[in-house]
Amino acid sequence: MKSQRAELVADTAIALLADRGMRGLTHRAVDEAAGLPPGSTSNLARTRSALLELTLARLTQLESAAFAPVLGAPGPDLVEDLVEMTAQALWLQLTAGRRQTIARYELAFEATRRPELRTIYDRAGERFRDLAVTILSAVGSSDPVRHGRQFVAFGEGVMFDAVIGAGAEPTLDDLRLGARELLRGMLGGADR
Amino acid sequence: MKSQRAELVADTAIALLADRGMRGLTHRAVDEAAGLPPGSTSNLARTRSALLELTLARLTQLESAAFAPVLGAPGPDLVEDLVEMTAQALWLQLTAGRRQTIARYELAFEATRRPELRTIYDRAGERFRDLAVTILSAVGSSDPVRHGRQFVAFGEGVMFDAVIGAGAEPTLDDLRLGARELLRGMLGGADR
Repeated sequence: MKSQRAELVADTAIALLADRGMRGLTHRAVDEAAGLPPGSTSNLARTRSALLELTLARLTQLESAAFAPVLGAPGPDLVEDLVEMTAQALWLQLTAGRRQTIARYELAFEATRRPELRTIYDRAGERFRDLAVTILSAVGSSDPVRHGRQFVAFGEGVMFDAVIGAGAEPTLDDLRLGARELLRGMLGGADR
Repeated sequence: MKSQRAELVADTAIALLADRGMRGLTHRAVDEAAGLPPGSTSNLARTRSALLELTLARLTQLESAAFAPVLGAPGPDLVEDLVEMTAQALWLQLTAGRRQTIARYELAFEATRRPELRTIYDRAGERFRDLAVTILSAVGSSDPVRHGRQFVAFGEGVMFDAVIGAGAEPTLDDLRLGARELLRGMLGGADR
């Protein structure tokens, strides 16, 4: 983010999206909820698109930060590192980062009908997918592009099911077991 | 559905949800798009909640119908049957049933802020999860409740990623490989 005020505006927008949905996010509502003088949000992000872009940029920044510590220090068992990284990252998105997760889903939906948001959303998603392909390749996948996508889709499904679909909440241990099973299935070979 | 008109109204609502989003679904828009006299939709479903409930009931009916043929005729290899069933069902939701998938996601979101829709959405989801638990148990899972949920989450993630998240579209063969790998990982044993 370019400034502390931009961060405050974006964080407030995330909270509004999570709590009130897309309709609850307006420039004025951000000013009010953030305790800023009227017009402050408009000064930073004139149009609705600009406000959505700012919010998504902040979400991407926060999610990358959540993944960074586990990615930075690989141990001797890469598969088990990946299991732990995945479980911890998903756990974070379901607990402390839950409103971020909800806000991202709101933006994902909005992107299906707003081409300029689509571009930004896809660019952020592309970065995650590329990272997944690199990691799957590092742990010995014979089909890293497909496996990388599948791995991202798995995480997406676990989060969506818990946060939006009202499936039961997985425990951290459920998340570890799930990631381990998925990887075992993928790395066992491309054919049955 | 109780009547052909109820089906027509619900199918039109599904198309409107998919094409124009939650804001595009109104009683009047359904009348117009379905070519019905003004007030027809209100006669069937007086409130907005009633209209959303009718639409979700129809989606559940259509999705169950999509799963039914493959469930009805088990072959000698249950795991391979389940792989094929899953791949075909997901494929259908990504192709011919794509607008139904989008409409269901719109309703899933709306349910996070509308308790009476939440109840119906969760009941429908529960049925799918119970079915998944039964099937995972039948193919020999040692932890069928957790695996059943995980299996549903996997399918949800594959659909969400392709339809909303703009991941690459999986081929039918990608879906087969993915389901097979997931099952292999699950059925290989509960521990690593």
